[in-house]
Amino acid sequence: MNENAPQKTAKGMAAPRAAGPTAIRVPHAAARAQIVAILRAWGVGAAHADAAGELLTYADLRGVESHGLAMMANYETHKGQGSFVPAPEVTLVRETPALALLDGGAGMGHHPAIRGMELAIEKCAKIGIAAVTVRNSWHFGAAGYYAEMAVKRGFIGMVTTSVWNNAVVPTYAAEAMLGTNPIALAAPARRNPPFVFDMASSTVAAGKVQLAAILGKPIPVGWSVNERGEPETDSQRAWDHRALTPLGGTPEMSSHKGYGLGAMVEILSGTLSGARHAAVEKHHGRNRRPFNVGHFFLAIDPAAMRGDDGFADQLDELIDALRAAKPVDPRQPVLVAGDPERAKHAERSRDGIPYAPALVARVRKMAEAAGCDYMLEDEVR
Amino acid sequence: MNENAPQKTAKGMAAPRAAGPTAIRVPHAAARAQIVAILRAWGVGAAHADAAGELLTYADLRGVESHGLAMMANYETHKGQGSFVPAPEVTLVRETPALALLDGGAGMGHHPAIRGMELAIEKCAKIGIAAVTVRNSWHFGAAGYYAEMAVKRGFIGMVTTSVWNNAVVPTYAAEAMLGTNPIALAAPARRNPPFVFDMASSTVAAGKVQLAAILGKPIPVGWSVNERGEPETDSQRAWDHRALTPLGGTPEMSSHKGYGLGAMVEILSGTLSGARHAAVEKHHGRNRRPFNVGHFFLAIDPAAMRGDDGFADQLDELIDALRAAKPVDPRQPVLVAGDPERAKHAERSRDGIPYAPALVARVRKMAEAAGCDYMLEDEVR
Repeated sequence: MNENAPQKTAKGMAAPRAAGPTAIRVPHAAARAQIVAILRAWGVGAAHADAAGELLTYADLRGVESHGLAMMANYETHKGQGSFVPAPEVTLVRETPALALLDGGAGMGHHPAIRGMELAIEKCAKIGIAAVTVRNSWHFGAAGYYAEMAVKRGFIGMVTTSVWNNAVVPTYAAEAMLGTNPIALAAPARRNPPFVFDMASSTVAAGKVQLAAILGKPIPVGWSVNERGEPETDSQRAWDHRALTPLGGTPEMSSHKGYGLGAMVEILSGTLSGARHAAVEKHHGRNRRPFNVGHFFLAIDPAAMRGDDGFADQLDELIDALRAAKPVDPRQPVLVAGDPERAKHAERSRDGIPYAPALVARVRKMAEAAGCDYMLEDEVR
Repeated sequence: MNENAPQKTAKGMAAPRAAGPTAIRVPHAAARAQIVAILRAWGVGAAHADAAGELLTYADLRGVESHGLAMMANYETHKGQGSFVPAPEVTLVRETPALALLDGGAGMGHHPAIRGMELAIEKCAKIGIAAVTVRNSWHFGAAGYYAEMAVKRGFIGMVTTSVWNNAVVPTYAAEAMLGTNPIALAAPARRNPPFVFDMASSTVAAGKVQLAAILGKPIPVGWSVNERGEPETDSQRAWDHRALTPLGGTPEMSSHKGYGLGAMVEILSGTLSGARHAAVEKHHGRNRRPFNVGHFFLAIDPAAMRGDDGFADQLDELIDALRAAKPVDPRQPVLVAGDPERAKHAERSRDGIPYAPALVARVRKMAEAAGCDYMLEDEVR
């Protein structure tokens, strides 16, 4: 692992490491137990630690390594910086039949996020639609997880979150203002697995830039910009500077759309909940902690909207049609959102999650420092 | 105007014409009256004609020419093809306190869309959030218009629509399946004008490709693909083939995100309402008319969510921060969604809407053929 990584990641999210041929396979239950054990040893509350273990393992099982075990390095750094309260109380600030606002108590985001989506689902079951926001929260893992919670009840789930660090450069700007502000939507099919869409509003994740830097490869025009706002193709400089483009990449390729999506996510997650905006903090030269991140959860009951149970069948038809589209290359069929992650999940549930030796070594040190058991290598099959 | 244009546009949306230096300036009230007069002469119902006049003029005033007067050529073609019922009844299929489903009666989309958003706003005012879908509808103009309706009541508005023609090629596919499936979100600020975001989920509008073809210029890699799914840079061939990329443009630049957004819009607009999917029609080799397009309207009351009236003030802070971001070029400041359209609106409200002589000539013929007054040139100042 890059020796600089811990410091760099303090600026933002951890990045996927190239697990490579020497990867160590760890059963997901062991990875999860390890995450929970370390967090508990740090004084993180039980509900928060369990939720984090659930979310990080969910991400690693699906190949979204940027939101998996690798996040523990970030959490450790941020613990030292007082970025989050270990064992906060999550409180219900406000509630109506169709809406609710939670306060995350300045702790980790996973637990209040689960409570937020649970509440949205519960209200949606009664009234057909509901939205819940969470403020005073922090990193909540992969947004798709919460959207999928709604699907398990037959609902459409939509989820967005703001992010505390300035990572994405608005169109025409030469400095990062917004976070990677993800948007997720999941919807239930009948014969097919659900539609599960989860995208950051940047062109690529910071981790893709880091991976190119580790491999010494250039990155394409449109992934990242330099301090003058010009395309940066040197992956190491791009990783050091950390200024991602919004989806689209360049003005010519409609980066204003990705920028607009990022702002839309910021409004739903941050302005609607009354959380803090990383862009406003930067504008005023501030960098306050805890970060006060906001989340948005929406659930819609298709049966209540349509008056029948035909939604899942109709979504099957749409999914079938998209999958049957003539492919560019017959060896790479056309996919539907959620397909790549599902394939990874099947393989990794069976064979274990592949982790880079450097990451496993880092976690061992973390466990030793925290005074808890080390659980990864003993479990390797 | 390209002589082939009417036939081409029958395949999809009209495209912006280069108005050029010989453009004729028409006061927006005259353009609107002309649109309404022609539609009425065709037998379109009064509410439908008025709504179309409102929407097309809204788009032209804001510089979104693809959704303005130029649409009349499409509407004329589709009238001949029986693509829409001129004077349908719009019916309320289902209603709950927080949801409603309208049937557009196979007519034009503008009027049922206005009714849909009005209903969502009315319900939102009582319960804090509401969603309305419309099925059996058609082209409804610029999605941002309806999102802005919510803003006038202090609410967040979100709008999506499906589209009846196959224009956008999924990642890894070699044929168009989805429509340009737009998503719009508007939110009220206090000191600043509202945030009004409205994007098609394709990298660029078909009209940008047509404009390059008219000007004889190549288009960049990532706007369009050929029948093998490879990037097409010849603008005339790209316009003939009409296969746009999803936002992102290429797999390397994360076109799967734009594709996922387009599918998300298709689900909210089409599957949730029980409308027809263009992708499913194509999959089965069908091309039925009327098209049965679906729309989705969501309104959220920030005051009901937050329990205070601080949303608009906080959005001001976010907008201020984004506008103050260091620009690449001081002559091109950083913008916020809605800014470019607002600048056009101010200028065109004052000086009239610039139309290409060929478009004006086309509309004159349309008015003559319909037996109604021609109102554009007489009003030119």
